[in-house]
Amino acid sequence: MAPPTPRLVVPIDLKKKPWEQPLPLHNRWHPEIPPVTHVKAGEPIRVEMVDWTGGAIKDDDSATDVKFIDLSTIHYLSGPIRVEDKDGIAAMPGDLLAVEICNLGPLPGDEWGYTATFDRENGGGFLTDHFPCATKAIWYFEGIYAYSPHIPGVRFPGLTHPGIIGTAPSMELLNIWNDREREVEENGHKSLKLCEVLHTRPLANLPSTKGCHLGKIKKGTSEWEKVANEAARTIPGRENGGNCDIKNLSRGSKIYLPVFVEGANLSTGDMHFSQGDGEVSFCGAIEMSGFLELKCEIIRGGMKEYLTPMGPTLLHVNPIFEIGPVEPRFSEWLVFEGISVDESGRQHFLDASVAYKRAVLNAIDYLSKFGYSKEQIYLLLSCCPCEGRISGIVDSPNAVATLAIPTAIFDQDIRPKAGKVPVGPRLVRKPDVLRCSYDGNLPTTKNPAALM
Amino acid sequence: MAPPTPRLVVPIDLKKKPWEQPLPLHNRWHPEIPPVTHVKAGEPIRVEMVDWTGGAIKDDDSATDVKFIDLSTIHYLSGPIRVEDKDGIAAMPGDLLAVEICNLGPLPGDEWGYTATFDRENGGGFLTDHFPCATKAIWYFEGIYAYSPHIPGVRFPGLTHPGIIGTAPSMELLNIWNDREREVEENGHKSLKLCEVLHTRPLANLPSTKGCHLGKIKKGTSEWEKVANEAARTIPGRENGGNCDIKNLSRGSKIYLPVFVEGANLSTGDMHFSQGDGEVSFCGAIEMSGFLELKCEIIRGGMKEYLTPMGPTLLHVNPIFEIGPVEPRFSEWLVFEGISVDESGRQHFLDASVAYKRAVLNAIDYLSKFGYSKEQIYLLLSCCPCEGRISGIVDSPNAVATLAIPTAIFDQDIRPKAGKVPVGPRLVRKPDVLRCSYDGNLPTTKNPAALM
Amino acid sequence: MAPPTPRLVVPIDLKKKPWEQPLPLHNRWHPEIPPVTHVKAGEPIRVEMVDWTGGAIKDDDSATDVKFIDLSTIHYLSGPIRVEDKDGIAAMPGDLLAVEICNLGPLPGDEWGYTATFDRENGGGFLTDHFPCATKAIWYFEGIYAYSPHIPGVRFPGLTHPGIIGTAPSMELLNIWNDREREVEENGHKSLKLCEVLHTRPLANLPSTKGCHLGKIKKGTSEWEKVANEAARTIPGRENGGNCDIKNLSRGSKIYLPVFVEGANLSTGDMHFSQGDGEVSFCGAIEMSGFLELKCEIIRGGMKEYLTPMGPTLLHVNPIFEIGPVEPRFSEWLVFEGISVDESGRQHFLDASVAYKRAVLNAIDYLSKFGYSKEQIYLLLSCCPCEGRISGIVDSPNAVATLAIPTAIFDQDIRPKAGKVPVGPRLVRKPDVLRCSYDGNLPTTKNPAALM
Amino acid sequence: MAPPTPRLVVPIDLKKKPWEQPLPLHNRWHPEIPPVTHVKAGEPIRVEMVDWTGGAIKDDDSATDVKFIDLSTIHYLSGPIRVEDKDGIAAMPGDLLAVEICNLGPLPGDEWGYTATFDRENGGGFLTDHFPCATKAIWYFEGIYAYSPHIPGVRFPGLTHPGIIGTAPSMELLNIWNDREREVEENGHKSLKLCEVLHTRPLANLPSTKGCHLGKIKKGTSEWEKVANEAARTIPGRENGGNCDIKNLSRGSKIYLPVFVEGANLSTGDMHFSQGDGEVSFCGAIEMSGFLELKCEIIRGGMKEYLTPMGPTLLHVNPIFEIGPVEPRFSEWLVFEGISVDESGRQHFLDASVAYKRAVLNAIDYLSKFGYSKEQIYLLLSCCPCEGRISGIVDSPNAVATLAIPTAIFDQDIRPKAGKVPVGPRLVRKPDVLRCSYDGNLPTTKNPAALM
Repeated sequence: MAPPTPRLVVPIDLKKKPWEQPLPLHNRWHPEIPPVTHVKAGEPIRVEMVDWTGGAIKDDDSATDVKFIDLSTIHYLSGPIRVEDKDGIAAMPGDLLAVEICNLGPLPGDEWGYTATFDRENGGGFLTDHFPCATKAIWYFEGIYAYSPHIPGVRFPGLTHPGIIGTAPSMELLNIWNDREREVEENGHKSLKLCEVLHTRPLANLPSTKGCHLGKIKKGTSEWEKVANEAARTIPGRENGGNCDIKNLSRGSKIYLPVFVEGANLSTGDMHFSQGDGEVSFCGAIEMSGFLELKCEIIRGGMKEYLTPMGPTLLHVNPIFEIGPVEPRFSEWLVFEGISVDESGRQHFLDASVAYKRAVLNAIDYLSKFGYSKEQIYLLLSCCPCEGRISGIVDSPNAVATLAIPTAIFDQDIRPKAGKVPVGPRLVRKPDVLRCSYDGNLPTTKNPAALM
Repeated sequence: MAPPTPRLVVPIDLKKKPWEQPLPLHNRWHPEIPPVTHVKAGEPIRVEMVDWTGGAIKDDDSATDVKFIDLSTIHYLSGPIRVEDKDGIAAMPGDLLAVEICNLGPLPGDEWGYTATFDRENGGGFLTDHFPCATKAIWYFEGIYAYSPHIPGVRFPGLTHPGIIGTAPSMELLNIWNDREREVEENGHKSLKLCEVLHTRPLANLPSTKGCHLGKIKKGTSEWEKVANEAARTIPGRENGGNCDIKNLSRGSKIYLPVFVEGANLSTGDMHFSQGDGEVSFCGAIEMSGFLELKCEIIRGGMKEYLTPMGPTLLHVNPIFEIGPVEPRFSEWLVFEGISVDESGRQHFLDASVAYKRAVLNAIDYLSKFGYSKEQIYLLLSCCPCEGRISGIVDSPNAVATLAIPTAIFDQDIRPKAGKVPVGPRLVRKPDVLRCSYDGNLPTTKNPAALM
Repeated sequence: MAPPTPRLVVPIDLKKKPWEQPLPLHNRWHPEIPPVTHVKAGEPIRVEMVDWTGGAIKDDDSATDVKFIDLSTIHYLSGPIRVEDKDGIAAMPGDLLAVEICNLGPLPGDEWGYTATFDRENGGGFLTDHFPCATKAIWYFEGIYAYSPHIPGVRFPGLTHPGIIGTAPSMELLNIWNDREREVEENGHKSLKLCEVLHTRPLANLPSTKGCHLGKIKKGTSEWEKVANEAARTIPGRENGGNCDIKNLSRGSKIYLPVFVEGANLSTGDMHFSQGDGEVSFCGAIEMSGFLELKCEIIRGGMKEYLTPMGPTLLHVNPIFEIGPVEPRFSEWLVFEGISVDESGRQHFLDASVAYKRAVLNAIDYLSKFGYSKEQIYLLLSCCPCEGRISGIVDSPNAVATLAIPTAIFDQDIRPKAGKVPVGPRLVRKPDVLRCSYDGNLPTTKNPAALM
Repeated sequence: MAPPTPRLVVPIDLKKKPWEQPLPLHNRWHPEIPPVTHVKAGEPIRVEMVDWTGGAIKDDDSATDVKFIDLSTIHYLSGPIRVEDKDGIAAMPGDLLAVEICNLGPLPGDEWGYTATFDRENGGGFLTDHFPCATKAIWYFEGIYAYSPHIPGVRFPGLTHPGIIGTAPSMELLNIWNDREREVEENGHKSLKLCEVLHTRPLANLPSTKGCHLGKIKKGTSEWEKVANEAARTIPGRENGGNCDIKNLSRGSKIYLPVFVEGANLSTGDMHFSQGDGEVSFCGAIEMSGFLELKCEIIRGGMKEYLTPMGPTLLHVNPIFEIGPVEPRFSEWLVFEGISVDESGRQHFLDASVAYKRAVLNAIDYLSKFGYSKEQIYLLLSCCPCEGRISGIVDSPNAVATLAIPTAIFDQDIRPKAGKVPVGPRLVRKPDVLRCSYDGNLPTTKNPAALM
């Protein structure tokens, strides 16, 4: 007999707000958020999800929604899902949860997405000191392809994947997270030189009751208050997986997640039609609602068997990923390089973040010669299938990072040529991304050479 | 008429020491190192090169040569090569030099290479605090494949490339380099928290007369003294290209290098049979002697046209690379993730270097379960075609870096499975890498969890 | 505004028989079969379809349905679809219809398929003289992967595609088809030596009223009688596209079809989850029901512009196909070769069909050494992503054909090795394909060498 | 210790004629041609070879050499090479010889090749009835890339491979060859309808003393007379491998050849810089001199273990090939289709040769719209990395064959577009291929539709 069609275990009604969904969503990590459903190992299931903002960003003609977004509510996740073996025994702490991604895509009737970068004072992005304004580009899908009315002349196949997939932390692990992130939030600005180059604020996002949704835990109860004050934000990836943003995690991939609580309590969300390595603009993939078809297996005792803790406790582990055989083929790549010297000319020591920032800045300036605004390229590099590599991390004092862009996504030949960059009517790329003004007072990073 | 066979413009005699070669080698960057040859744009040329140490590392049964290597002499480069257009007019500052890699490979009769990691007090490596001993593995080549008697059960096709290719800096650019690197060498230990995680010392390698070779400039002259005291070491990649270590820069690739001095003065060396992203063990690719067949074109005024300076001067640029269509295909990848939390459990802010260190440590521990020593895997990940990605760089406070390993390079199935890691006679991987003791007193990084 | 979700223009109700569908299906090509719907150029549409037999083959434990299938009813097609431009003007004869495949897959709730070979006296297959029995294997889908309980140890990603997509012929073209096929049916056995090697009978399938479905044309009318007696069977691919069975025609592909009648009258069906080149077992892909999401464009006058007629009329053309960038990557292939010498040892002159038959026979015998029955491999090679190539077609008297099989689809290493084929418990591949007896009297081809 | 550099076992001196080489070449298959060298299993060896005509085709401005070529002398092969195991015991009949291709390329100093099609009355080609004239195009190499002054606007990476690699036949096998080929030569024109479509003559090339070279067997001896009258021509691929023309047989590939005589007596030649599937113009790859670096292994008793005889004797086998992981990646392909209806409109029964002929004709006509002569495209499709597939071989009466062309080899976009084929100055493709007149009287095939 044929296996059953994937069972819809978390449905989404796109006409409803995220907090009105048939099964309540959550936007925090906490061991006590109760499962909304349970599944058997081996059973094909379907999980639907809203986009990471729960519909706050619209398919319209303005970036105002981006500028004023309330980031305290992100990311809306579907789940938790309790996983049991065929005998009904739940996944247990110490097990490994193997999750195979059988299929995924946009929700039918909602085949569009967006890429944006936040205002410097409300979320920012990797290059927020260069691009402090909120901007937005809309993407439409034609099967595997995406195109944007705001970034003309570009079309590419998506490597669709969930930005977030993870298990619930145990209380012990949650405390570890909160302690170490509080430390960086409170003291990081004093000690971390890196902060001078990466301007995103705040340094960490600590638990807050504002914007908090805890699934089946009812707002107004004392339980809600307690959990909301402890529960970790979903922004960073951590030991439980979470916001890994691994762009190749598409059909046929498999994720081996550590189990910290009984039932594993798997949650997922933040579907991406496509993403570039680094997701540099922060709201940076082609963000959309979507569905995942999954199959979970339990590897009993698998954490000890396969994951090596690295840190002060046995909980300091990271998941493992298996990437499947189906990806767009690209034949030729144009590669931009950055070294760990910042825009002021200052040398940093083997700093891959600084080097990658330079590689991205170099790519933006280069590609803007072909008829684009820098904001168009910034958003494009955040969501197209470009590869960000750590090429050299040992040649003191320079880390070398590279950004490789498949040339076939453009409708023109973007390679350097003898003679000047071709100019002509087709190179006027209009319209541009949607954008707002930046009304704040924080200084931006100037490129001194740009004025020469 | 057929184009001529590539003209051998820099020959290497493997029976001679690096300083006895027919055309003298050099191991520093300086505008005044005279060209050893000149070539015409469009002309196919062949450049031979010694391995980066000039033969200091032997195909023998000991890692002693690695432990006591004199790093003041690296990297021995072939060139400089002066490039002129068809009318005999040299490449000029402001031009772009487009170098196509037509062919490359090991020098006939020398089809072997090595991967090593240095002693913590003499060079170190990305994980020198974990692996302070000097180690070495020899690799033999069978056409496109490499295998090592010291890392059994592994065989992979190489993506051969030059680790170093670059143009000579102008005096102005050289001064910029020396100033900024001196600053980090002198003050970095005070201010850079990153240094606590990456333990390579010194922080930079400043000009030194020790071990210096300056090509046609005769030792003992006053010119030699002056230049040797100014000339930059070749270790880091910089504005002129240099030690970029871009692993995909193989046949059919093209490099667009800025020209800073008349003639461009192209130099190249440090041939790699294969390298993993990051080249983590430092002596980390499969290092070998080799040849390059090149074709140079001059794009007049190309720096202004195509490269965007980013920094205090118009010289703050980086080269661009075009990657060709010929690479080994791999179907499946196992991916390890790291976040910017260090081994002590401390949170760092969006630090991709820390995240990548964790990803590599996770991969080493995992793969060592399959019958390998950790040192074997450390060397393997440094030289096999693995991909190091910056997956997420915006989700405060965690950067997410990933290391993707093609599963087909192993003769066993290394994926996690339900049940334990298979054990059996075939998993006893002997022999091991060659290694020396570490006799120093610097503290190593302990993984607290490993003792639990 | 986002483009609309693909509009469902041909719905399928899986609980109904093919002749009870909301929009009537058809299984013949004829210019007078009226369109069931019309669409605008550029409009995203969704077309659903039954499997090619309209549900005659079941997910059960017997091949009896295969043995006694009524082939006069195949293939059930969805359509015809009339295509108009944005001004409502229909595609006209001489235009080119560009059809982009945006998305496709199995119908939800019906995620399974089958591969079969027919009884020698009821359909046969490429190797029917060797394998005269009806056999069947069921395949189940897990996202992109298919596996079969009847062919254990094999799992592969599908490259899903429609087996049939085509436009309606004009009356003139239809007459050409019927004339030439009648000629081969009536006289082929006298003159075509090839028939001694390829044993499929009949030589052609001429129009017949038996099993005929003509969409909106009502059975019992005189129109039905006339059209049924003229309408071409859908089995062979022809000038209008039709049963091309191009296995790479998946997401992102584009088909340029000639238009012979007003409106183009596009029909499609015969969805394949996966197919090997040649589709050798005849019922040979993984056959399933499914959906296509399409976008049609009209290239006015495109036949003259892009298609070259080759033959006695301007209608002797073939469509053009553009294959998209998304396919499973396979790293290693095992290749079997055949030359145009048949099983009796007789030499044929540059006959690629004979050569391919030998290549397939060689592959079957080889792979059956790894624990499979020959019938299992015959079905597998018909549906897995193997490549059938014409390697040499000029070296008289031998054509050389090759069949390349990706080694990764097996869970064991199938390459030759020093020493014998490994034997052991894991190589006992049970169960086998479902099969019936062959009750006829036609002689089978014996391999004389097999008895030695 | 490092393995030795491949030992040069068959050297070629390009300044000498093929019959003056240090080790004599041969151009026939016969068991009694003595080995010119012997090698050990596992030993890396280097075999050099002349181009298949032994230098008869020149890098000049005329196709006269092609028109008047003496085809009785082809192909000049290097070898035979006797293979022994490590104990000095030769490969024996019944063994399998596994030959790994470690490296290959053009001979240094001879980096050019040619593609040609022969005069209809002296060799012909797949489409000789359409293109009866001798034509020639010269190709120059830049590393992995080839370009031709005679086919402007095209450049592609080569997948270099030996066209011929095979073992010596036993006397019994040789007799089988001669008998069956004599039968087709003598009676084929009476019985084979296929001959009406494929116009190459003669139908087979039987043994002849004219042009014969037998290696170490001295001309003028009675042995020479006897062997020359028995020895098989090298044109077709057969049971011993030989002229397989498998275009993907490049670096890292492995060939499993049956052994029929003591020592295996391996011969190789006919190096191709690149070839399209089918090698349609006959002199059809980019033909060149070259070198192979090989490693041979003996699988004792491997014929019985791995090869299945299919035919009247145990000698009716075919070799097996393993294709390695290194190939040019192409992202997009344009696919032309042919069905088994010939140019006169006549239906053939599942005839893949006829279908492929139509696909090639369709591709030629299409691509000639982009500024090329048909002869340019005919030669291009013969040597560029295009794929010829048997897509459907079961849908009576039409075989469907396809020819897929990677779009990236052209410097213009060759896909159909709304609107006419772009015309303009850049589309004037000059110069053309070199060509001679056809002075014979054989009828050519006219495309009736071309005159309408």
